[in-house]
Amino acid sequence: MTTMLQATHNGARYELTDPISMPKAGGFLWNQKMMIQITCRGYAVAQFMQPEPAKYSHAPNLEAKTFMQPEQSYYVDHPGRFVYIKDEETGKLFSAPYEPVRAKLDSFTFSVGQSDIVWAVERLGIRVEMTLGLPTQDVAELWTVKVTNLSGRPRRISVYPYFTIGNMSWMNQSAEYRPDLGGVVASSVTPYQKATEYFKNKYLKDKTYLICGTPPISWETNQQAFEGEGGLHAPSSIQEIGLLGTDARYETPVAAVQYRTALGVDEQREYRFIFGPAYDDEEIRGMSKKYLAKGGFERAAREYSNYIEQGCGCLQIETPDEDLDNFVNNWLARQVYYHGDVNRLTTDPQTRNYLQDNMGMSYIKPEVTRKAFLTALSQQEATGAMPDGILLAEGAELKYINQIPHTDMCVWLPVTLDAYLAETADYKLLSEKVPGKTYTVLEAISRAMDWLLSARDERGLSYIAQGDWCDPMNMVGYKGKGVSGWLTVATGYALSLWAGVCEQQGKTELATRYRASVKECNASANEHLWDGDWFARGITDDDVTFGTKEDVEGRIWLNPQTFSILSGAASPEQRTKMISEVDKQLSTPYGLTMFAPPYSKMREDVGRVTQKYPGSAENGSVYNHAAIFYIYSLYTIGDSDHAYKLLRQMLPGPTEEDYVQRGQLPIYIPNYYRGAYHEYPRTAGRSSQLFNTGTITWVYRCFIEGLCGLRGDAEGLTIRPQLPSGWNEIKATRKFRGATFQVDIRRRNGLKEVVVMHNGKVLPGARVTGIKSGATYNLSVLVPQ
Amino acid sequence: MTTMLQATHNGARYELTDPISMPKAGGFLWNQKMMIQITCRGYAVAQFMQPEPAKYSHAPNLEAKTFMQPEQSYYVDHPGRFVYIKDEETGKLFSAPYEPVRAKLDSFTFSVGQSDIVWAVERLGIRVEMTLGLPTQDVAELWTVKVTNLSGRPRRISVYPYFTIGNMSWMNQSAEYRPDLGGVVASSVTPYQKATEYFKNKYLKDKTYLICGTPPISWETNQQAFEGEGGLHAPSSIQEIGLLGTDARYETPVAAVQYRTALGVDEQREYRFIFGPAYDDEEIRGMSKKYLAKGGFERAAREYSNYIEQGCGCLQIETPDEDLDNFVNNWLARQVYYHGDVNRLTTDPQTRNYLQDNMGMSYIKPEVTRKAFLTALSQQEATGAMPDGILLAEGAELKYINQIPHTDMCVWLPVTLDAYLAETADYKLLSEKVPGKTYTVLEAISRAMDWLLSARDERGLSYIAQGDWCDPMNMVGYKGKGVSGWLTVATGYALSLWAGVCEQQGKTELATRYRASVKECNASANEHLWDGDWFARGITDDDVTFGTKEDVEGRIWLNPQTFSILSGAASPEQRTKMISEVDKQLSTPYGLTMFAPPYSKMREDVGRVTQKYPGSAENGSVYNHAAIFYIYSLYTIGDSDHAYKLLRQMLPGPTEEDYVQRGQLPIYIPNYYRGAYHEYPRTAGRSSQLFNTGTITWVYRCFIEGLCGLRGDAEGLTIRPQLPSGWNEIKATRKFRGATFQVDIRRRNGLKEVVVMHNGKVLPGARVTGIKSGATYNLSVLVPQ
Repeated sequence: MTTMLQATHNGARYELTDPISMPKAGGFLWNQKMMIQITCRGYAVAQFMQPEPAKYSHAPNLEAKTFMQPEQSYYVDHPGRFVYIKDEETGKLFSAPYEPVRAKLDSFTFSVGQSDIVWAVERLGIRVEMTLGLPTQDVAELWTVKVTNLSGRPRRISVYPYFTIGNMSWMNQSAEYRPDLGGVVASSVTPYQKATEYFKNKYLKDKTYLICGTPPISWETNQQAFEGEGGLHAPSSIQEIGLLGTDARYETPVAAVQYRTALGVDEQREYRFIFGPAYDDEEIRGMSKKYLAKGGFERAAREYSNYIEQGCGCLQIETPDEDLDNFVNNWLARQVYYHGDVNRLTTDPQTRNYLQDNMGMSYIKPEVTRKAFLTALSQQEATGAMPDGILLAEGAELKYINQIPHTDMCVWLPVTLDAYLAETADYKLLSEKVPGKTYTVLEAISRAMDWLLSARDERGLSYIAQGDWCDPMNMVGYKGKGVSGWLTVATGYALSLWAGVCEQQGKTELATRYRASVKECNASANEHLWDGDWFARGITDDDVTFGTKEDVEGRIWLNPQTFSILSGAASPEQRTKMISEVDKQLSTPYGLTMFAPPYSKMREDVGRVTQKYPGSAENGSVYNHAAIFYIYSLYTIGDSDHAYKLLRQMLPGPTEEDYVQRGQLPIYIPNYYRGAYHEYPRTAGRSSQLFNTGTITWVYRCFIEGLCGLRGDAEGLTIRPQLPSGWNEIKATRKFRGATFQVDIRRRNGLKEVVVMHNGKVLPGARVTGIKSGATYNLSVLVPQ
Repeated sequence: MTTMLQATHNGARYELTDPISMPKAGGFLWNQKMMIQITCRGYAVAQFMQPEPAKYSHAPNLEAKTFMQPEQSYYVDHPGRFVYIKDEETGKLFSAPYEPVRAKLDSFTFSVGQSDIVWAVERLGIRVEMTLGLPTQDVAELWTVKVTNLSGRPRRISVYPYFTIGNMSWMNQSAEYRPDLGGVVASSVTPYQKATEYFKNKYLKDKTYLICGTPPISWETNQQAFEGEGGLHAPSSIQEIGLLGTDARYETPVAAVQYRTALGVDEQREYRFIFGPAYDDEEIRGMSKKYLAKGGFERAAREYSNYIEQGCGCLQIETPDEDLDNFVNNWLARQVYYHGDVNRLTTDPQTRNYLQDNMGMSYIKPEVTRKAFLTALSQQEATGAMPDGILLAEGAELKYINQIPHTDMCVWLPVTLDAYLAETADYKLLSEKVPGKTYTVLEAISRAMDWLLSARDERGLSYIAQGDWCDPMNMVGYKGKGVSGWLTVATGYALSLWAGVCEQQGKTELATRYRASVKECNASANEHLWDGDWFARGITDDDVTFGTKEDVEGRIWLNPQTFSILSGAASPEQRTKMISEVDKQLSTPYGLTMFAPPYSKMREDVGRVTQKYPGSAENGSVYNHAAIFYIYSLYTIGDSDHAYKLLRQMLPGPTEEDYVQRGQLPIYIPNYYRGAYHEYPRTAGRSSQLFNTGTITWVYRCFIEGLCGLRGDAEGLTIRPQLPSGWNEIKATRKFRGATFQVDIRRRNGLKEVVVMHNGKVLPGARVTGIKSGATYNLSVLVPQ
């Protein structure tokens, strides 16, 4: 592959200089009501909440309603936002950013910023700059298109923004240009069949509009009339003098407009557009007034930038690895914020996702985390079990995978609470009454722990039902007998954390009881699941232990090893063996796979995971969420080098080959990279392109608690950095409980443990207590060689 | 629009000579397990039963599972079957039939036959002929591609059949070339989430294959590798010497192969392919052996042609209108046969569709009709009500609209039985025991009639619940009070037919009771629904009568008028008024609309129909099923001219403008033509492109019983032709109860009634009795001027 990729980072911005080598590379913007993922070539997937996720720019056919699946290919007519440029003297055509014409560009820049996404492309001596921004509160895309004459002679060109609307509905769809509103308005009715659904749909935003800041000279609102026989790469209508102004009458709507302009040497024109969904004309009119008035876009951009800035997180680092610094300082918290801010734009997040995503907000807006715990616990079942998903909107219901019974949901309560309490010391939360319940948070979580303990078989192993953390392992225990090795040790880990909290709260009896249970869980795991060099993954309904040396596929699984470290089930000797086997069997250049070897065919007593494509999603992929937990567990045992190597591997780059193979810019961590490295090396390492992942909050936690070792406790902040061996010095700025810690960390020969100095004094236990909100602490930290 | 359309009919074949003017024009082939609808440009929708409808060639994205909706636009990457041709000397490219290159062709013929579909296109001095046939029993497409050198000089070309496979599954998809099987095999796993679904899916045909009769020189099985940056109109891989042989690993599969060939002057090469779904390699191997062996395609074509021939029907006509003759003699029965043969390829046909589709089989294979009555009645509810759909396969369930309660299902029993008995005189059916029930067919239908009578309000009007024949009128009666004017008179019609059957069976008491009920229904309709010039459509839950002069939209509805004629509710004076209003308010150049004016916005007390796009589907469209019933009712009252005019209007053509506006060849009658003629004249008249429709059996019945007047009864055949006034003579050949009737019909001055002569004798009552199976009757029929 020849590539012109020269990815550079420029503060909070990542740039790509050619659209060929990484065709799916893209960025995403969101606000609390919408999300848009848009590629360097202009293809876009945008969703908004009403309250369920909905679209305003559709595929040209009937799309299945499903969860986001951005890994599959784009295709010519995929929804997108494009600008055609026609030289009126020669008739020559190109399009920005690249699709649909795919003309060879003289220059191309795709620039993903924190709060905008910008393209600049040049061809035929014309420069086109497209900027996408979002408002903070409204569901709309704010587009600026600038065209500049770089050719050194006067030019006459036509500019045709082309925004797809697609097949909105088989019940009712149409589009027309509305001079009174200054743009294209497409109308539809969401299809339904049951009378009751009518009332659900009644106030949906069934219109899609493109409002133009400058009135166009012509327009087309009918997709087929726009394309004609020329096709999207050379639309017939663009070969005419003007677009014909065809309406769409039950035909596929489109929003395409034309500006004809004469540009002097170096002259520039700017056009602005709002694209989005609306309920009625009134709403469109309101959006137009709000944003197309003078300074409207500028104000929106400032507000949005402030909004994003609120998610800047609690950590800045300066290390020998500039790419890493850029990612951690500018992008990592942004992704954490996205998760905590919008709950992946769903009305029924999986309970484990909801808790972990909100755990991330501990570092950004802890009041959000606090509220999430109360919301989640208010939906606890009478048995103490947590539901599979948390309902966030009126009328929401459990969908997709949330209809399948999983047994791990309770585990995540203490695991995520641990981070929240460490960050905030908000122990008052524990005595809050759970909304709608008769008991407190502490009692609620104890009930959840008791439920976990009750959901075990006579051997003390935890039932798996139709799945645990690895969703599609749906046939291990569907008959009611199969157990999960991971869940057994994860229960141990959850209980040990919870026992710590109980102890801290003076509930000695509870703490003692739970500590005894931890021992039980760990002993059961050791008795039934230790396979000599690692822990097995589970035992099926028919009493077959799997994830063992006997297995040709699915031989070793990462999660049971990780959690046996966290729970203490693994002795130091066992850990050594396990870690060595993990290294040997699960390592790939793109990270650790969740298990190996991948399944090549259905194994009925394991279930769906074995039917997934080898290396994809959960079937032996580099599932980052599993990998980051392993890394976290390595930090808990001080295996710093090992942990850092794996952590660094999770970010695409810095080499060009790595970017290209992974196929995404390093502005987020995807839920997985393709595995099956040995079986299918051509595609291994590819990004899933999905930025929804529980991984990210743990990555942040690993940097905070692990690498920088800046973890809070009830009274203060303890400093225990774990630098990888190649590094001699890093700097970190940590916001914590209202104070700012500027920490300078250096290696020092001959030390046995970390020494922390503040105002020239060594802090006992390497710990700062009595922290004053608003104060700045300059800490000098020395770590052993 | 400039068009080169010169549609000609050539026996049982319709040809189109350019792909521009009618881009959606297509044909369809089916066997009992599959159906393919393919357009002149090569786009295809193919479905097969396993047992629910499934696809083996998919869209490039996640497609929604829904009922067939062929009215919406095709798009560049839509599934299809194409052949690229590259001139190896110049590198020039075109594709047959037309897509995806869309090169201007020197000649083009799209030829839809009864049992095959053929394209012949020429460009660059090369002729490409593509033929699609189906086997009779297997799910597979049999393709023949012939390339001929017409250029008068030796040529070197490459031939690239390109068959889309698309996005098969997000769980697991891949493709590779399999030398051992001689073709491309794509594999997938149907996605599911609940463990129970695994067992449902276990034996699905999740593979798609393209097996080549001649081994190709190169291949590509990866869609993106095939397209490259060139795009589908100029695929990068075709610009290379050979295809690269990329596999698809969780990527979008495709089946593209290359043949490189040198052609002497006038030389021809032929290639054969099988394309379809399979469960495993073994099945593919079997298909290859069966069809690619010498003579395999020829044998399959013969068998399939015989199979289609079995559906040739019972009527041939010779009239002054050749286009009409061609349609009736070659195409009409084919569409009737399709419906009765495969029940629209669904496992849960709506009860009214199932009964009417099978009614059509009375004229083709009456034993099928008989069995269908027994099947339907075996699913009758204890109350006497008929369910909304009839389940045809194990594990089938009521889907889509069949989950919405409708109240008209029972009506269709006597209405369709009437045709069956007239054709077969199989009165024995009435005393058969219904399978799984304790009662006979006669008793079952009486129960159904009693249910209809019980489902009326205190005024004697029939409840509508969430819909009657007009599906989406779902809010007239959802509160349990609203009534249907149509159903009230349709009940009257059904009862009057059923009373006739009871009488014939000597059940005088029953007959008397039902005749009294007919009077009641008709009286209630007259008392509550006669609006002065026509019958209203119904009365809502809130007691608002609609379909009246007071209404600005939905003012007059066709069905209540039609059925008031059939039930006898309308007096001759009322009929005259109604018919005149129907003419005035519902006529368009493309037929009668189901009601007018169309609704432009939601009317909550009427419901979903009012939210459909005006002129589309049921919202004021030319709904052919409603129109044909009106025509049928006109024949029952002898309004011959009027009936024929509307009947003829239902077929596209013969004028070019008419073909082009309707957008389909006259090989089938679609379920509707777009209405809203006054509101949206540009798109009015367009075909829905959907050949599934209850219309068709009634069209056949109108030709048989109406125009030709050749209706059976318990003992014989009555002859009552109703020629339109412009015609002086027609000939008809009618198969009836094993005999053949060759009927010569002429007008004669001065006659008062029809005179039928057989062997020189006038038949009393214009009726043939004592019909001998196997005999031929030459009848000379004279009809009054």
